[in-house]
Amino acid sequence: MYRNANCGELTAELAGKTVTLAGWVQKRRDLGGVIFIDLRDRSGIVQIVFNPKVSQEAWDKADKVRSEYCLSVTGEVTVRDPEAVNEKIKTGDIEVMISEIYVLNKSKTPPFPIEDGIGASEDVRLKYRYLDLRRPEMLETLKMRNKITHTLRRFLDEKGFLDIETPILTKSTPEGARDYLVPSRIHPGEFYALPQSPQLFKQLLMASGIEKYYQIARCFRDEDLRADRQPEFTQVDIEMSFFEIEAFQNLIEEMLVDLVKEVKGVDIPRPFRRLTYAQAMDLYGSDKPDTRFGMTLIDLTDIAADSTLRVFKEVQEKGGQVKAINVKGQAANFSRKQVDEDLRAIVSPFGAKGLAWLKVEEGGMKGPIAKFFDEALTARIAERTNAEPGDLLLFVADKKKIVADSLGALRLKLGKDLGLIDQSALNFLWITEFPLLSYSEEEHRYVAEHHPFTMPVLEDMDKIKSDPGSVRAQSYDMVLNGFELGSGSERICNHEMQEEMFKVLGFTEERAEKQFGYLMEAFEYGAPPHGGMALGIDRIVMLLAERSSLRDTIAFPKTASASDLLMHAPSEVSQAQLSELHLDVATLLK
Amino acid sequence: MYRNANCGELTAELAGKTVTLAGWVQKRRDLGGVIFIDLRDRSGIVQIVFNPKVSQEAWDKADKVRSEYCLSVTGEVTVRDPEAVNEKIKTGDIEVMISEIYVLNKSKTPPFPIEDGIGASEDVRLKYRYLDLRRPEMLETLKMRNKITHTLRRFLDEKGFLDIETPILTKSTPEGARDYLVPSRIHPGEFYALPQSPQLFKQLLMASGIEKYYQIARCFRDEDLRADRQPEFTQVDIEMSFFEIEAFQNLIEEMLVDLVKEVKGVDIPRPFRRLTYAQAMDLYGSDKPDTRFGMTLIDLTDIAADSTLRVFKEVQEKGGQVKAINVKGQAANFSRKQVDEDLRAIVSPFGAKGLAWLKVEEGGMKGPIAKFFDEALTARIAERTNAEPGDLLLFVADKKKIVADSLGALRLKLGKDLGLIDQSALNFLWITEFPLLSYSEEEHRYVAEHHPFTMPVLEDMDKIKSDPGSVRAQSYDMVLNGFELGSGSERICNHEMQEEMFKVLGFTEERAEKQFGYLMEAFEYGAPPHGGMALGIDRIVMLLAERSSLRDTIAFPKTASASDLLMHAPSEVSQAQLSELHLDVATLLK
Repeated sequence: MYRNANCGELTAELAGKTVTLAGWVQKRRDLGGVIFIDLRDRSGIVQIVFNPKVSQEAWDKADKVRSEYCLSVTGEVTVRDPEAVNEKIKTGDIEVMISEIYVLNKSKTPPFPIEDGIGASEDVRLKYRYLDLRRPEMLETLKMRNKITHTLRRFLDEKGFLDIETPILTKSTPEGARDYLVPSRIHPGEFYALPQSPQLFKQLLMASGIEKYYQIARCFRDEDLRADRQPEFTQVDIEMSFFEIEAFQNLIEEMLVDLVKEVKGVDIPRPFRRLTYAQAMDLYGSDKPDTRFGMTLIDLTDIAADSTLRVFKEVQEKGGQVKAINVKGQAANFSRKQVDEDLRAIVSPFGAKGLAWLKVEEGGMKGPIAKFFDEALTARIAERTNAEPGDLLLFVADKKKIVADSLGALRLKLGKDLGLIDQSALNFLWITEFPLLSYSEEEHRYVAEHHPFTMPVLEDMDKIKSDPGSVRAQSYDMVLNGFELGSGSERICNHEMQEEMFKVLGFTEERAEKQFGYLMEAFEYGAPPHGGMALGIDRIVMLLAERSSLRDTIAFPKTASASDLLMHAPSEVSQAQLSELHLDVATLLK
Repeated sequence: MYRNANCGELTAELAGKTVTLAGWVQKRRDLGGVIFIDLRDRSGIVQIVFNPKVSQEAWDKADKVRSEYCLSVTGEVTVRDPEAVNEKIKTGDIEVMISEIYVLNKSKTPPFPIEDGIGASEDVRLKYRYLDLRRPEMLETLKMRNKITHTLRRFLDEKGFLDIETPILTKSTPEGARDYLVPSRIHPGEFYALPQSPQLFKQLLMASGIEKYYQIARCFRDEDLRADRQPEFTQVDIEMSFFEIEAFQNLIEEMLVDLVKEVKGVDIPRPFRRLTYAQAMDLYGSDKPDTRFGMTLIDLTDIAADSTLRVFKEVQEKGGQVKAINVKGQAANFSRKQVDEDLRAIVSPFGAKGLAWLKVEEGGMKGPIAKFFDEALTARIAERTNAEPGDLLLFVADKKKIVADSLGALRLKLGKDLGLIDQSALNFLWITEFPLLSYSEEEHRYVAEHHPFTMPVLEDMDKIKSDPGSVRAQSYDMVLNGFELGSGSERICNHEMQEEMFKVLGFTEERAEKQFGYLMEAFEYGAPPHGGMALGIDRIVMLLAERSSLRDTIAFPKTASASDLLMHAPSEVSQAQLSELHLDVATLLK
């Protein structure tokens, strides 16, 4: 028997009992001829002691043991002397006097220490992932991930949702992100695609009368990876029939409250805050605002247009905006240079041509643009921005989108830098009524903001041809602390409306039929009204485990270039494999 | 609100209450101006009634409704007259008198009726899978699948196993079945492979100190599909450290007993029966025997060799076998022609050159070979085969493998045809000590019977070079009613032994290093002893739901040619997609 007890679970109540433990050597030291080893298993750490008086043979073996050796040991649980108690570990009041030891496997010296907060490069950590995962913070994150998926499953099961698996080898639908393709051996020249999400399958399941479906589903997107994206990711995917948007959102809130309670022991108040897309853009310049702090965007277009600064007037005339944020009490902490250089550098990548500012003083405002505002206008600004002496007002005047993006980013950066964010808060937020469509400059057509299966707000439908960009969708995002956790919508379940939607998106009838004909056909056999959403598991884990990277939430993640540094994937394959798949690697690259 | 109650859950206790239901029209009939509709939702069926005296408007709408229309209706629960009670449905003692109806979606006439046991071809069922899944037997199978995975997860969670996701985009390891490949866009000419199982990842998780891992994992094999194989399938994948084979098998037994109890309400006795591979081949001619009936194979080589039939003697001299099965009491039911033609046709595909037979009578045996056995030999046969008058003995004499395969198949066919199988029995069975290696005529080398990471039986290791085929593995299969549910083993966790194993399998040092170097390196950092197994979910569902095809256990299965008939996958993709992946489809096929 390798063990009959776990290291981290031993207590003084077991004093005098003989236990057998198995685990890894965290630390070994020799003090006056007695060897002390911190033995670590998944449950924690306990100190084991080799005294030649107890067993010379065990001591001899222990003398040769090094860090990360894998051991099985037997000995007696002993209460430590009060002065020897180690407050830092849970089992610090006891130790185990070892009489027998088996070295199950030796270890070379690890390339980095098995402890939290190490400085090793991420590439080294990924190459030796099996050592990286031994570190407590990584193990705890995987444990929390397990608890999160288990809790979500338990909740959805209790609510009558059926866990149904959908295929990974499916059909390429080149609307949206880029597909990963899988060549077929049996059907030469044909390909499967890995699913970007189970969207179509879950809608078919609603047409199948499943009524309530969920799946913790793997999804795939072959995108140019930003620092924190993964080619494969996991979402909890939910869909229900006889769908009513408010009841469904209540269910999702209940699920998340239950999750946070179970995983963090924290009560989150309900209902969650709600903002329409328009409100979120207006107040925060973002459709995934971090609402853990204020400093909202204030529209000053009308006041600014009354000033003598010509550029403000022009912006208004062109339909643009002048907006500001009030950085409370920070006037004295930002020099002219800091504003003009450091803060301006934050907004300029978003296209803002300038960052105007005013410092609020007793009885007035100061700054390069102060002279363009007379006393009355200054008072109006002060009133609308709640300005008090010592405040710093930062202005961007430009097209609506540039104002939103640049001030939104500036707000976020200042919120972080000035420590305005309550790190313990979990601010769940609904964003609703997204635009149904957005115009793609690249493709010279409208594309679906969410996906082509989203139900429009019916009262906006008369504008679908005249002003497609103004039609709202029956869609919603769930945002947590500035991160989009997921999105959902009511779906179209009517053949004609779905056909119409493909037309608006510029599909020929033939293309719509070829790609999505089966879905529209399914709608003709009594498909129920339905809707749902999907929430990203990796991101939920990241936020609840308070990790800074999605990679830390995944046992075997890939790098930003979609490589697995441990196994070395992707890799070359044999010519025989390619021939069987009827493939040539393009000649230029050979 | 679409509904506030479920059709199948209404009871007479609700009489007088007004409910709102949603569902599909199972059946509609007009009796004397009153319309009766069987309304179906996921929970079951209830009869709803449209009487023009209750609501003419509702009646008018109901008059236009047809099968599979999707409705929402409101009405009063009413107890039926005793003579009108329908015993066939759970809600047969009530009906709902409808005052309001909304047609949520119309339906064309379905291509097959939405009921059990239909005659529609499987291709039509797969094309209209969303209608097929509405049929009760399909819905019930998906519900049972959900319950099975949920129960397995609950059990493994309680036992401290962590659910950890492993990658789908991984490295090609062309040892074993054929990989599905995924071309990389970012790394021209390189490919990912979809995992045949998470084997390597779960072993790395053991090296990571996870100790107990499970996953309900999707696996992929690009094989020539036999009638009942799927390109993607699901297994419950389990691995643990500080592994002891007996304790682990006990855990698996406990898990399966718990599962059957939960899903079927049946108590399965423990411990499960155990046979070594050698015993199973000897008694049943199969490594996955159906033990729900006897008719085991009886070795008569020694007796047959004493007969005057030369061919028996020769078989013995060449190391072959003469074995028989005793088909109890069936002598009178098989004519000479039936044995020589019908039964012989069963064994000949396995290479058996003949099927000898004897019919047992009072005081002797009859049949073409009877004359080669004198009285004493006949008595010895009778004794060893427990022969009684009326029994039919069937003999095959050939090489060991041919005898096993042909008599094993004959036994199984007769067991089925003669109704010897207790269809309600669930005979779980361990098969242990498989051969470690088997010789591949095709590759002219030994290949791993299970996989190259299986621990050999240590006492056999001295034969690894002299007689590799005789080395047993520390492996085991779980068999249920003649189906292999899954297999497992203790794994090698030592660098040198793993290296040695690759040598035995004919790997060059370079190839072993390139393909599995990372695993052998992981073993050098204190990897713990570990082992585990994987059980096929699709097959478990098939057996517990008493379905005859794996396809019926999967929501969206593929055909024998790996096609999805609903979405039409695989399919052609655009040249632009191929160019991005640096691929040409081989010129000959264009």
